[in-house]
Amino acid sequence: MEKEELHLEVEREARAKGNNVSPAVIKRLPRYFRYLRELIRNGKLRISSGELSAMMNVTASQIRQDLNCFGGFGQQGYGYNVHYLYAKVCEILGVGEGYSAIVIGSGNLGRALVRNPMFEKRGVDIVGMFDVSPEVIGKRVADIEVRDMQELESFCETCRVDMAVLTCPKENALDAAERVVKLGIKGIWNFTGKELEHLGENVVIENVHIGDSLMTLCYELRALEEKNLSEDV
Amino acid sequence: MEKEELHLEVEREARAKGNNVSPAVIKRLPRYFRYLRELIRNGKLRISSGELSAMMNVTASQIRQDLNCFGGFGQQGYGYNVHYLYAKVCEILGVGEGYSAIVIGSGNLGRALVRNPMFEKRGVDIVGMFDVSPEVIGKRVADIEVRDMQELESFCETCRVDMAVLTCPKENALDAAERVVKLGIKGIWNFTGKELEHLGENVVIENVHIGDSLMTLCYELRALEEKNLSEDV
Repeated sequence: MEKEELHLEVEREARAKGNNVSPAVIKRLPRYFRYLRELIRNGKLRISSGELSAMMNVTASQIRQDLNCFGGFGQQGYGYNVHYLYAKVCEILGVGEGYSAIVIGSGNLGRALVRNPMFEKRGVDIVGMFDVSPEVIGKRVADIEVRDMQELESFCETCRVDMAVLTCPKENALDAAERVVKLGIKGIWNFTGKELEHLGENVVIENVHIGDSLMTLCYELRALEEKNLSEDV
Repeated sequence: MEKEELHLEVEREARAKGNNVSPAVIKRLPRYFRYLRELIRNGKLRISSGELSAMMNVTASQIRQDLNCFGGFGQQGYGYNVHYLYAKVCEILGVGEGYSAIVIGSGNLGRALVRNPMFEKRGVDIVGMFDVSPEVIGKRVADIEVRDMQELESFCETCRVDMAVLTCPKENALDAAERVVKLGIKGIWNFTGKELEHLGENVVIENVHIGDSLMTLCYELRALEEKNLSEDV
């Protein structure tokens, strides 16, 4: 086996291992990402599962299980290497793959997202913003120019785009999604409230329904009130 | 037992039953809420678990199980009564309890939330908006006046507020949260990126981390690329 091939083989194996992490763990990884980033920011080099457990409000045994899944083995008495864990989480999640994104819709939500540091923190580069309204086309949000939605196709011919963030009105969501899929964009982050699905095998979609979280809060609020009521009885 | 007492007893029992719905089902309810609302909008009166299953991309047996949990028993050949299910979901989730909310922070995200119909759809009334910046105080977002954050306490003395939506900068999140808790506000919907916790037993908090969903998308995008790569090999 040539050296190059061997290298590829090792890389493939490592990635395959990363992909064996269970979906439940994957779901928890963004939270680890946030806490580990915070620890690094605070100059913390090592952490025990007990400390992480207290911070994250998860049992220490759950944390040990999760971290072991992707090869983060703590040392008795020394705990975990924070930088190593962070690098591992980033690797599995695809942070730092250098993905590029466009934002479709430059309303309040689109502007809020573009100005939010979360893209930069996760290594996603916003390369363009599109709208149909003549009043905003040509203006800038942060340092991104808002382009005419008619230029979407020509823009994507000259610039690689990995994901489209949809913040346009609900009724335009499907049309926008079909256009970006046709252009070969493979990731859709959908804030329109329109459930997008069945756009082909070669597309991944994250439908965000912020209202679901509002309902959870309403539910918890009512449960709290009932608990208080029943204690009064 | 007096009639009034009997009524209360029945109501208490019904509520207790609602509270026995498992946390896993509760988590899925906002999605049922959205789909059932859509069905009602389209004038659909009855639906089978098979149809609902195809719409929601969940197995029919999962749907039957979920709906049975809160007393939604379908009839063989007739399916489920859409209005009944919707009313049940709303009851369990606390939609229509008449909750009122204030929004703290009138930046792009705050404005996007206030203008979003989701509050109205879920029966939550936005009664006030607060900011510290003199440039926006006194202006209106939708039909809500932006008030000086200094007026928060006096406003809450005259107006009942159930929840506070935090969209202020991360560094002001804890201070804002502590002020609203002191005012007796029991629900916090937190978009600041600062993880809020331990604010007391009498407070429920929903920390929203939009970036977590971006990471999931990055992960899926990478998994898709790897799948395509391995098929090319």
